[in-house]
Amino acid sequence: MEFSQRVAWSDSSDVAAILKAVSDPEILSLAGGIPAPELFPVEEVKAATTVVIDREGGRALQYSSSQGDPRLRSMIARRMAEKYRTPAEPDQILITNGSQQALDIAGKVFLDEGSVVLCESPTYLGALGAFRTYGARFIEVETDDDGMVMEDLERKLRDVQGVRLVYVNPDFQNPTGIDWSVERRRAFARLVGEYDVPAVEDNPYGELRFEGACPPSIKSFDEKGTVISLGSFSKIFCPGMRVAWMMACPDILMAFMDMKQNDILCSSTLHQAQIVAYDEMFDLDAHVRRLCDVYKKRLNALLEAVDEHFPQEASVRPPLGGLFAWVSLPEGVNAREIFAEAVTRHKVAFVPGGAFFAESGHENFMRLNFSAVPEDRLREGIRRLGLLLRQSL
Amino acid sequence: MEFSQRVAWSDSSDVAAILKAVSDPEILSLAGGIPAPELFPVEEVKAATTVVIDREGGRALQYSSSQGDPRLRSMIARRMAEKYRTPAEPDQILITNGSQQALDIAGKVFLDEGSVVLCESPTYLGALGAFRTYGARFIEVETDDDGMVMEDLERKLRDVQGVRLVYVNPDFQNPTGIDWSVERRRAFARLVGEYDVPAVEDNPYGELRFEGACPPSIKSFDEKGTVISLGSFSKIFCPGMRVAWMMACPDILMAFMDMKQNDILCSSTLHQAQIVAYDEMFDLDAHVRRLCDVYKKRLNALLEAVDEHFPQEASVRPPLGGLFAWVSLPEGVNAREIFAEAVTRHKVAFVPGGAFFAESGHENFMRLNFSAVPEDRLREGIRRLGLLLRQSL
Repeated sequence: MEFSQRVAWSDSSDVAAILKAVSDPEILSLAGGIPAPELFPVEEVKAATTVVIDREGGRALQYSSSQGDPRLRSMIARRMAEKYRTPAEPDQILITNGSQQALDIAGKVFLDEGSVVLCESPTYLGALGAFRTYGARFIEVETDDDGMVMEDLERKLRDVQGVRLVYVNPDFQNPTGIDWSVERRRAFARLVGEYDVPAVEDNPYGELRFEGACPPSIKSFDEKGTVISLGSFSKIFCPGMRVAWMMACPDILMAFMDMKQNDILCSSTLHQAQIVAYDEMFDLDAHVRRLCDVYKKRLNALLEAVDEHFPQEASVRPPLGGLFAWVSLPEGVNAREIFAEAVTRHKVAFVPGGAFFAESGHENFMRLNFSAVPEDRLREGIRRLGLLLRQSL
Repeated sequence: MEFSQRVAWSDSSDVAAILKAVSDPEILSLAGGIPAPELFPVEEVKAATTVVIDREGGRALQYSSSQGDPRLRSMIARRMAEKYRTPAEPDQILITNGSQQALDIAGKVFLDEGSVVLCESPTYLGALGAFRTYGARFIEVETDDDGMVMEDLERKLRDVQGVRLVYVNPDFQNPTGIDWSVERRRAFARLVGEYDVPAVEDNPYGELRFEGACPPSIKSFDEKGTVISLGSFSKIFCPGMRVAWMMACPDILMAFMDMKQNDILCSSTLHQAQIVAYDEMFDLDAHVRRLCDVYKKRLNALLEAVDEHFPQEASVRPPLGGLFAWVSLPEGVNAREIFAEAVTRHKVAFVPGGAFFAESGHENFMRLNFSAVPEDRLREGIRRLGLLLRQSL
């Protein structure tokens, strides 16, 4: 029996190792990338479900359009304008099954074997996974605390053969928590437009901003229609519903919609209607503010514990929102080795940073999640990691 | 901006033309492939939702495992044994986002550009769509009223270079309604095992059998582990939840699971739990029996109307279950032309049969849906089509 080349290209070993480690209930896990389940609006979802079923009956459980519920697309368009100064029409929006499906479809639509994807250094593991299955070759673009370095991006857009896609995660990036400056956003949109290369702006965490308003999206500066904007209800509402969206110019939207139809026909009709009803009945913005309050306290607990327990050589980048804090260890230290020790002897888990680099090397980093862990457990986890780091460094 | 080759390979024009036609509310559509929404157990789903949320709280709305809810997989394993004499372990089952996702993943996992897929003649349009995006070349296997003709299948497995997948839909096939004989099922499993070629047995309609028990699945005769069995809750419960499954040997299951993770991370946690709770609280088998009673009456209404209104040259194959009746017109008649006339002048739609043939030709067929149309509307639709056919033939 013969598998496709794609099966060999795909490499889920990093994710599998992490999942295996954290499936042990005795492990205190800072490895997740998940929201706090105790904050999900469960009673409100129950009430919204009743309203949907009473109002829509069988239609709420039937197949629905591939593009998605028009009411939900209107709600998203309104929020894109309000939150990110991104003018959007409901027709420019396609509902996807989590942002991960939009990443998979981006690979399907733009990549052939050997196509180059430019990405941040480091970048989101799940995007690497999705694009690899389409034969992507990754080239990292130099990245600093304000986002991709534009000079390096322009050099690579100009000189590298076969660039078919640029992938960025500019709002509280997974894994580093970096938040791109407005200037970089504007310059990025101009550059990818000038070189006519499609760019995915993946933004699942933007609304989890602990202070102030969201900056304009990259998409808001997109004059040439080369930017594909991704957003999601997973981190601001409930990930188990798998409802997210992409927004793009008509040609790209049509290609994505065809591929979505070939992939899953349509998204859950009921979940789309539940989000619409929730938005009518309750206040999603107030819910997001509650999440931000809790996550900010958790981040502060983590940072205080780091100050107390981590050795000087381990430095943490304090993010302004999102789910993750990024730890830099001295060059030469291998966080995968520390991970093995942490899991087996100290019963605490994180994600070794090397998994997030598209090109190899850079093993001296750790990603810590603070959203899904109560403050006392965070302090205990950091204490255990601090002990281990003091022994290892 | 450059798209992948896949975008050119994909061809959604048939589906788009049909969807466009049937989106007009004035059109009486026999073109659907959908269950009757008025039969969905809406109150029961509401009650099951309350139980799930009260019992599981935030967990029901959180991310969950790629493989799927173990309770749901146990329920499926039990039903596979009960209905189809197919011994199954929950660990051999992967939950998919509709069977369509399993088809997409089968393409991803088994096909490279130019790989050959053997299929029935005709075959399911959605499978053609999914496999085309991976560069499939299709070769039709001769098919009669008992399923694929084994001599032709063996000849093609032996002589055709590059066969990487066989796709069949043996229970009330979409579009013909053909139900494979037990002997063909057994012989098919033996042949694909002998030639070590993976085979997808796609079975969304099997339980919609109007008389008697289901025959054993092809999978039940699979000794070599080359058969991938697909099943779905879309036609026996609610398609809007997009919950289906695949069952296969461990190597294939792992490859599918990795690809599912890259595609959508996980299926809806809540919908999986809702089906589990429904099964605990209510009687799914009784629900399926109710569906069968209604669909059988609708089929009979269609057949009676055909007798009354269709000319002799149009013959309908009466199926023993499922959603579709298949109409053969005289050679040389083009059902796409009749479709255009039917939609514009008679305000009635069906699916022209040519769309279901992987190789071109065979335009003298029509697929009629009876599940989603009440009896009086079915009679009226057939009356209008009969008028048109009498003029056209």
